[in-house]
Amino acid sequence: MCGIVGIYNHSEAATLTYLCLYALQHRGQEGVGIATFDGNRSHVKKGDGLVSEVFTSRDQLQQLAGRIAVGHVRYSTYGGSNLANVQPLIFKYKDTHIAIVHNGNLINLKPIKQELEEQGTLFQTSSDTEFIIHLFAHAKGDSFDEKMRQALSRLEGAFSLIALFDDKMVIARDRHGYRPLCIGRIKDGFVFASETCALDLIGAIYERDIQPGEMLVLENDAMREYTFASPTPHHCIFEYVYFSRPDSRIFGEYVDKTRRKLGKNLALEKPVPNADIIISVPDSSNTTALGFSQRSTARFEIGLIRNHYIGRTFIHPNQAMRDFSAKIKFNPIGGVLKDRSVVVVDDSIVRGTTLQQLVRMIREAGAREVHIRIGSPPVKFPCFFGMDFPSTEELIANHRNITELQEFLQVDSLAYISVEGLLNSMPLPASHFCTACFTGDYCEKINR
Amino acid sequence: MCGIVGIYNHSEAATLTYLCLYALQHRGQEGVGIATFDGNRSHVKKGDGLVSEVFTSRDQLQQLAGRIAVGHVRYSTYGGSNLANVQPLIFKYKDTHIAIVHNGNLINLKPIKQELEEQGTLFQTSSDTEFIIHLFAHAKGDSFDEKMRQALSRLEGAFSLIALFDDKMVIARDRHGYRPLCIGRIKDGFVFASETCALDLIGAIYERDIQPGEMLVLENDAMREYTFASPTPHHCIFEYVYFSRPDSRIFGEYVDKTRRKLGKNLALEKPVPNADIIISVPDSSNTTALGFSQRSTARFEIGLIRNHYIGRTFIHPNQAMRDFSAKIKFNPIGGVLKDRSVVVVDDSIVRGTTLQQLVRMIREAGAREVHIRIGSPPVKFPCFFGMDFPSTEELIANHRNITELQEFLQVDSLAYISVEGLLNSMPLPASHFCTACFTGDYCEKINR
Amino acid sequence: MCGIVGIYNHSEAATLTYLCLYALQHRGQEGVGIATFDGNRSHVKKGDGLVSEVFTSRDQLQQLAGRIAVGHVRYSTYGGSNLANVQPLIFKYKDTHIAIVHNGNLINLKPIKQELEEQGTLFQTSSDTEFIIHLFAHAKGDSFDEKMRQALSRLEGAFSLIALFDDKMVIARDRHGYRPLCIGRIKDGFVFASETCALDLIGAIYERDIQPGEMLVLENDAMREYTFASPTPHHCIFEYVYFSRPDSRIFGEYVDKTRRKLGKNLALEKPVPNADIIISVPDSSNTTALGFSQRSTARFEIGLIRNHYIGRTFIHPNQAMRDFSAKIKFNPIGGVLKDRSVVVVDDSIVRGTTLQQLVRMIREAGAREVHIRIGSPPVKFPCFFGMDFPSTEELIANHRNITELQEFLQVDSLAYISVEGLLNSMPLPASHFCTACFTGDYCEKINR
Amino acid sequence: MCGIVGIYNHSEAATLTYLCLYALQHRGQEGVGIATFDGNRSHVKKGDGLVSEVFTSRDQLQQLAGRIAVGHVRYSTYGGSNLANVQPLIFKYKDTHIAIVHNGNLINLKPIKQELEEQGTLFQTSSDTEFIIHLFAHAKGDSFDEKMRQALSRLEGAFSLIALFDDKMVIARDRHGYRPLCIGRIKDGFVFASETCALDLIGAIYERDIQPGEMLVLENDAMREYTFASPTPHHCIFEYVYFSRPDSRIFGEYVDKTRRKLGKNLALEKPVPNADIIISVPDSSNTTALGFSQRSTARFEIGLIRNHYIGRTFIHPNQAMRDFSAKIKFNPIGGVLKDRSVVVVDDSIVRGTTLQQLVRMIREAGAREVHIRIGSPPVKFPCFFGMDFPSTEELIANHRNITELQEFLQVDSLAYISVEGLLNSMPLPASHFCTACFTGDYCEKINR
Repeated sequence: MCGIVGIYNHSEAATLTYLCLYALQHRGQEGVGIATFDGNRSHVKKGDGLVSEVFTSRDQLQQLAGRIAVGHVRYSTYGGSNLANVQPLIFKYKDTHIAIVHNGNLINLKPIKQELEEQGTLFQTSSDTEFIIHLFAHAKGDSFDEKMRQALSRLEGAFSLIALFDDKMVIARDRHGYRPLCIGRIKDGFVFASETCALDLIGAIYERDIQPGEMLVLENDAMREYTFASPTPHHCIFEYVYFSRPDSRIFGEYVDKTRRKLGKNLALEKPVPNADIIISVPDSSNTTALGFSQRSTARFEIGLIRNHYIGRTFIHPNQAMRDFSAKIKFNPIGGVLKDRSVVVVDDSIVRGTTLQQLVRMIREAGAREVHIRIGSPPVKFPCFFGMDFPSTEELIANHRNITELQEFLQVDSLAYISVEGLLNSMPLPASHFCTACFTGDYCEKINR
Repeated sequence: MCGIVGIYNHSEAATLTYLCLYALQHRGQEGVGIATFDGNRSHVKKGDGLVSEVFTSRDQLQQLAGRIAVGHVRYSTYGGSNLANVQPLIFKYKDTHIAIVHNGNLINLKPIKQELEEQGTLFQTSSDTEFIIHLFAHAKGDSFDEKMRQALSRLEGAFSLIALFDDKMVIARDRHGYRPLCIGRIKDGFVFASETCALDLIGAIYERDIQPGEMLVLENDAMREYTFASPTPHHCIFEYVYFSRPDSRIFGEYVDKTRRKLGKNLALEKPVPNADIIISVPDSSNTTALGFSQRSTARFEIGLIRNHYIGRTFIHPNQAMRDFSAKIKFNPIGGVLKDRSVVVVDDSIVRGTTLQQLVRMIREAGAREVHIRIGSPPVKFPCFFGMDFPSTEELIANHRNITELQEFLQVDSLAYISVEGLLNSMPLPASHFCTACFTGDYCEKINR
Repeated sequence: MCGIVGIYNHSEAATLTYLCLYALQHRGQEGVGIATFDGNRSHVKKGDGLVSEVFTSRDQLQQLAGRIAVGHVRYSTYGGSNLANVQPLIFKYKDTHIAIVHNGNLINLKPIKQELEEQGTLFQTSSDTEFIIHLFAHAKGDSFDEKMRQALSRLEGAFSLIALFDDKMVIARDRHGYRPLCIGRIKDGFVFASETCALDLIGAIYERDIQPGEMLVLENDAMREYTFASPTPHHCIFEYVYFSRPDSRIFGEYVDKTRRKLGKNLALEKPVPNADIIISVPDSSNTTALGFSQRSTARFEIGLIRNHYIGRTFIHPNQAMRDFSAKIKFNPIGGVLKDRSVVVVDDSIVRGTTLQQLVRMIREAGAREVHIRIGSPPVKFPCFFGMDFPSTEELIANHRNITELQEFLQVDSLAYISVEGLLNSMPLPASHFCTACFTGDYCEKINR
Repeated sequence: MCGIVGIYNHSEAATLTYLCLYALQHRGQEGVGIATFDGNRSHVKKGDGLVSEVFTSRDQLQQLAGRIAVGHVRYSTYGGSNLANVQPLIFKYKDTHIAIVHNGNLINLKPIKQELEEQGTLFQTSSDTEFIIHLFAHAKGDSFDEKMRQALSRLEGAFSLIALFDDKMVIARDRHGYRPLCIGRIKDGFVFASETCALDLIGAIYERDIQPGEMLVLENDAMREYTFASPTPHHCIFEYVYFSRPDSRIFGEYVDKTRRKLGKNLALEKPVPNADIIISVPDSSNTTALGFSQRSTARFEIGLIRNHYIGRTFIHPNQAMRDFSAKIKFNPIGGVLKDRSVVVVDDSIVRGTTLQQLVRMIREAGAREVHIRIGSPPVKFPCFFGMDFPSTEELIANHRNITELQEFLQVDSLAYISVEGLLNSMPLPASHFCTACFTGDYCEKINR
């Protein structure tokens, strides 16, 4: 996953981009970059690590001159962790400086790659994003806008993207609208960002989402709007379940509100009758757990403390330190858990190993019973649209049923919300969501 | 403030120290260091920044050879941010390698300094900690233990300290017990740490606290116990209110439990009759707010989202970006706050500026009323015992009464818990706590 | 200017490349990079600065796995000092990993660029080198070798290049042979390098130079040889005068030998009858000065000491410190210079500012007379073939005649060797050299 | 060895110190530091590596505020390469900020250490330098000057030192005057430096040397001069032979002049009758070789090229690369050496390994005969006064006679200058020099 930002027409474009990337840091911690265009020249600064690690002085932002900027935080390591793959990607085409940022994954790379290579195209990165610009450069349209439309119409899969072509900015979102992308206004300028929490930080006013299949071109302070493909929304439901920040508004609704409703539905669908307390796995499950508690007799409690200073821990002690990787992040509170029947609400189970360790820690802290309730159905299938799940073999629900999982986690009960329960919690009709990671029903044919 | 760690007799002493410092990172983010002794030589590594920034590879820990180690995380900048002041401080005395870590502040430096300088003593740091070792070197006792006792008995103020003298380890705590310090066991070895959360992380078993006025000497795998001063406990009540981690057990009780009780007492003492929801300023006030909600009719909600990726932000945009320093850390959730009468529970008010910004953000998110409830009395007086408050002039409660503060914060109501209410929430008698920052009654004469 | 290296078929390819780059460091100090191919994957490491600054640990070389490697040291900043422009440049084409290093400058970029962009080509760098690979990718030949030949035949200007295409290595030199490039053998492997001093360092045996217009393809331990353009040698005479290391053998002769002959001819052509001593501007003029002294009555002396620790000096003191930039590099020896009539032999005058400062320093050290003798004719015209001269306006000989220069330098006499005298010192016929920087007669039409 | 600098009363004290350290870089490449005092506060910046590596921006110098500064370049690793040992060492004594730099080694540390530790003194470094300040702090004099005199009179061994005590500067040199130390003037200020080449760089005017046994105190722009011990000069003759820069004037004479005379005497004493050419091992032997050639029939030639870009090379190739450590520094010139009878003039033989490799390289380049002439007698004994010779076992002349050495080096002849020949080349009487490394006759009793 990734987070993207674009600032159009603001005297502090790079600084605002930097701040927006801070707000989107949860979407990617592997790398970060910003590119600007100052009317004559382009500027770029990127590196591995967090925003606060790569950008360490005011000077760095001041060197990114210009009123127009794009930025990116990188999560995925598809394509290897080569610095060349850190976005924005930079190209030169007919004296035009191009910088592009992209969130998502394309699924029809194979035929496009073959075609482009027949025409003598070289690739400098192993990133999907490079394809988009090559297609643009090979497109045959009369105008810039037409060439861009043509290029976008060739792509399948997930792409929320923002690109600079000198002082032009192009913004586009795939026709399924897998990933969020919104527009905001700040003074006379525009802000584009993966989530609205980025707008909030800089005091920009949310205007609307980019529509699935929509392309915008900004030039000379004016915006031209196009539809490059007929929209058939399939938003990624995992953005609501886990990935987006609770204070963001995506796909037309606040994440936090949807997640609270989901917690309530989970409590109604899979109650734990005689539990004493309900705790969350902080911070991602907090709202779901709170919603769960509002439809339960047991009360909400804080039973796990999360250490937010972890950063990159390189060491695992040589001696067998049981449950180390969970312990370094979480500590159970004995006074809360001791002798209690505890409901642990979590957003999802992917590998299951951290949850297994957490359960063991909660039991060692004295819990009498441990019941797990999960705010999403079992994750059984890979995502080809940008969510960085591990390989199918590592998805524990793919090869263990509920009974086996209870055994593995050593819990008194385990229940997931159903696909229907999840969809009922959503602010849009069920057909508007991609739930392929639960069901295996992909909206498109994969041909990477 | 600072956090300190000692590991005695463990094959992975440096690694365990490193992990414990991770768990204590909330006690200091300015610097970190570890020193070990391997039987022949001492090793030390220290630097400015977080544990994860200073220790970046396994090699660094492996070079810290030995079965005995001390570590430190540094918060305060008393003495300037010179690297020489980052602990452990290292000395050589008669072929003995000395390494010392210290949490607290001494208050009788002036007379000691004068006396030592008359005797020709040089100082290499501006840290309190250096005095302790000079006193030891000048003490006249027959034995090591006797010299150490003498040196400690000269000190006034707050000191929880751990020191290596080659393969001997000395642990001591001032007779008031201002700062916490506990003992744990891991296999055949000992762990000493500011808070029990450090023990939990490495799987050590909590044994007891070091007593006020107690000195321990470990040598040849045996422990000798001494009382160097008659104990008169005055624990820092702010450790319970704000500073320690909720999952730690200090001064004989879990912080989390005390903080929840404090929240309840606050609700009983200063209720908000017709409020709709209660929110905390995450994460430090979570438990207090939860306690508050358990004695209120209004329900607990998550109304502010905290961005945990902030790190060191160097930039404030040139344009007047209102409330920036609060916005970069917190984002209000419109769906929760809109049209509601909101109780905001916070642990304390120091300068008041962040809270002022937060209130404005909450109002802009649509809150109908904002009521502030504070889990400690007004902070009006400086701390000479290690808590890094700003200058007295910057303590807003020092020069504004409640009405003026309400005006400053622009809230519908503001109330603090009383000193009595706070002390009633504590697990020990009132006389066992230092509340000087609220009352101005210091237990000792200050002569820095 | 730049230095390039290729190692084919050696178990320590990266390490040997690293060592060869050390030997070629005088050809470029701005950046350095090495790329390898290990049979499956390519590896690359590059950065700004000296070899010793970018490569700082054994690990870095070990990660560059493979028996085939190319390396580059970078001098020029044509194209900006963007890290993307540091070589080797890396591309992916039809699953082939390409890495290329290049010394020289192309002069027909304009028409090639236009043609490539019509075909939809994007550029990721502002380096000449990228063009070569794009031409290859667009070439229509049946075989790899044929496509490569076609691409090379399109290029005009100076190019000594080495490229990896997975486990194939291609080596080529432009038909004028502007820049040197030699072949050596080490065990069963091949070494290619800009100068033979690189071969000497690793103990490789010099075999021959790559011929002007020659292309070599190494694959499966065999070498295929081609002529892609009819050779018309125009070697850069400045390589002999100043640029190459004296211990290298280029264009068929040792640099040192040519430079000594040049010094002798200079003494015969432009003698200084009554001088006392002859000194060089160390180290580049040492051999020329020694040659000069062997045809003079005055004796060779060491009158200037060079400080070799300079590195990057960022500071010029605020106060007017006269002649600072020369002083930080050179110090005159009073005992040698005092009351003497001194001949200063230098290799060339470009801007003239350092020489002006040196003369002033020599006079202040007590020299009675100062006579300048220059081992090359006046540099009046720009180089389009890789030598990094400043702009024409900054070439002092371009707008000052000898009398004006004597005035500017404040010397008793100034004389340059004539173009004929220079050519007479060369080991090859006059027609085999490019002397355009002295004469303005370029061998090719410039169309950058 | 080390180089030291002091600047008194100049608006750019730190910048001038930085420049002087550049000029003294040959005296130490392991570490560098500068300390200043600005009237209220002291400032210090130090680190491992070259001047250009530790000081990388103008800001760093600007932060070193004040009109008074001391600086140090560090060579030796006596005391370990701990950053705490990098000078200037910093202390605080009775509100006075002390910073000290020191070149030399003390030889009566044992009794002083014992005495100081009895008085309760702690040591923070393993450096000789710290002793000096402790002695000062324990001295019983009435005035500052008297205390300083007392402290200095306790020291035996080599010490050229400069110290700041707030805005006072103290300069002193041991009574033997082992290491050089000079005074210069710049505007209204003073410059103190190990060698005059530092004065030349910043345009300061050389005034005189600090006398053996002399102490200067500068305060309020006035200088007070003292003799703290009766002078008995024993200058280190190795400073002339090898260590100092040829353009410096030390012990009353230019190094270059002495070294040339030494070369002449070597030629007269140990001629090589039928040699063809004389070459030096650049750069340290250049002047000696030139002197040698002026008393020989054979002519001076440049037969070895030195690579000045070496820096820290961390790698030695795995395969047996014969003579690697010499090859990476030197390359022989075939055209000069081939078929010739070559005299190689070197300044000294310490371990002999590099020379052995050089001889092999010269032979492989085709030399017919190789004759070695050394500008100093055999180095057989350790230096306790600051010269960093290896252990006695590693001094090859300690356990091999001339015949064995010829065998080891594989040369046609080998001859050293005699002790008398060396002393005859000196500008001062023989009794004024320490020649203990050749003779074993130390001027003082060693009691470290």
